[in-house]
Amino acid sequence: MIFHQFFEKESSTYTYLLACEDTREAVLIDPVVSEIEHYAQLLAVKNLTLAYSLDTHVHADHVTAANQLREKFGCKTVLHRNSGVACGDIFITDKSAIRIGDILVEARYTPGHTNACTSYVVEGMVFTGDALLIDGCGRTDFQEGNAATLYDSIHQQIFSLPDETIVYPGHDYNGGLSSTVGQERLHNARLGNGRSKQEFIDIMQKLNLPYPKKIDIALPANKACGK
Amino acid sequence: MIFHQFFEKESSTYTYLLACEDTREAVLIDPVVSEIEHYAQLLAVKNLTLAYSLDTHVHADHVTAANQLREKFGCKTVLHRNSGVACGDIFITDKSAIRIGDILVEARYTPGHTNACTSYVVEGMVFTGDALLIDGCGRTDFQEGNAATLYDSIHQQIFSLPDETIVYPGHDYNGGLSSTVGQERLHNARLGNGRSKQEFIDIMQKLNLPYPKKIDIALPANKACGK
Ligand SMILES: [Fe+2]
Ligand SMILES: [Fe+2]
Repeated sequence: MIFHQFFEKESSTYTYLLACEDTREAVLIDPVVSEIEHYAQLLAVKNLTLAYSLDTHVHADHVTAANQLREKFGCKTVLHRNSGVACGDIFITDKSAIRIGDILVEARYTPGHTNACTSYVVEGMVFTGDALLIDGCGRTDFQEGNAATLYDSIHQQIFSLPDETIVYPGHDYNGGLSSTVGQERLHNARLGNGRSKQEFIDIMQKLNLPYPKKIDIALPANKACGK
Repeated sequence: MIFHQFFEKESSTYTYLLACEDTREAVLIDPVVSEIEHYAQLLAVKNLTLAYSLDTHVHADHVTAANQLREKFGCKTVLHRNSGVACGDIFITDKSAIRIGDILVEARYTPGHTNACTSYVVEGMVFTGDALLIDGCGRTDFQEGNAATLYDSIHQQIFSLPDETIVYPGHDYNGGLSSTVGQERLHNARLGNGRSKQEFIDIMQKLNLPYPKKIDIALPANKACGK
């Protein structure tokens, strides 16, 4: 499998490219509109065809490249049915999957940060978007966020994966690239060490985060697939 | 919307083409491998691009055209995650959806005839495959069939649609083209007129149907996308 992790500085967003070495089909997970040239370059260098652009959720902090990638490469755009993004091509739900060559990309519905959050599981890796972050998790005070729901999603859909599964988050603000399910299950500051749901809800309620800077631009843009 | 109903005589199979008049994108539901030239002709005449080939389930009575359509037109093949068809492109689950232009094709999981049966709902129409047939239903004695499950599927996922919804079945052996939800809900010989689940189970158990003629050829072929 071909694997590449991209980083977009302004919003500290990670974008992932996965591709089948045989068929040369590729998917991008959470592409950022400003970074299209980087994706195009890698696709060309590696001789890959972009088949799908996947979003883990409707982002509030950056604009998705979904629509521009669709226009440029003819790929299909994929996101959860609950996203309310009418311009998407394929609307997945829990346990839906997308195949590229030998690779199966499996969707696990992980709401709580938003009501459309989906994690993607691929061969020993999980792309968690903003559900589970390294030593943290997505905020739950916007976009139908709900701490109790997020707790259940992470426990049932992510911590139930084998401990050695590599966690690739949607963001990291401290330079971390990846973690593992075991590491987060045991040591995540908000969820690790068997923390109860009520403890987690209390932590999330006390975060007192500022209003998201780009939400008023990013949300309407992403509801239009980044147009 | 562009709509066309095809009939394949040998297995009495209905295939449906739906397309967006604006974008000229099309889907085929339950295409039969022997009929590819008919589909190709209509696509050409109407100037349509085949975006997706959808199967309602893994058929036991005819071979799907999915793989040949994919090779000929570059479309993506779609079926339920439970199908066990590893060569599919997009594996849907209940409430997944596919968009072509203005048209949303919504999946409703309707197991019972098989464990992967999906009905597709599109603007006042429901494509029921072999779950609900005109004045009948699919058999439940093969492919993880289960009469109680089928009863629940039809009641919860099909009879819950508005009565005027047009029912387009996967087969009809008596020349019927379509029905309506109201008609079937009230008058279907096996399910109509408020028949109980136990009555339905008894009816299905007493059908005493012959071994499906083509199942030993069709099933392995369809598990390989019709290759
Ligand atoms: Fe987010
Ligand atoms: Fe069937």
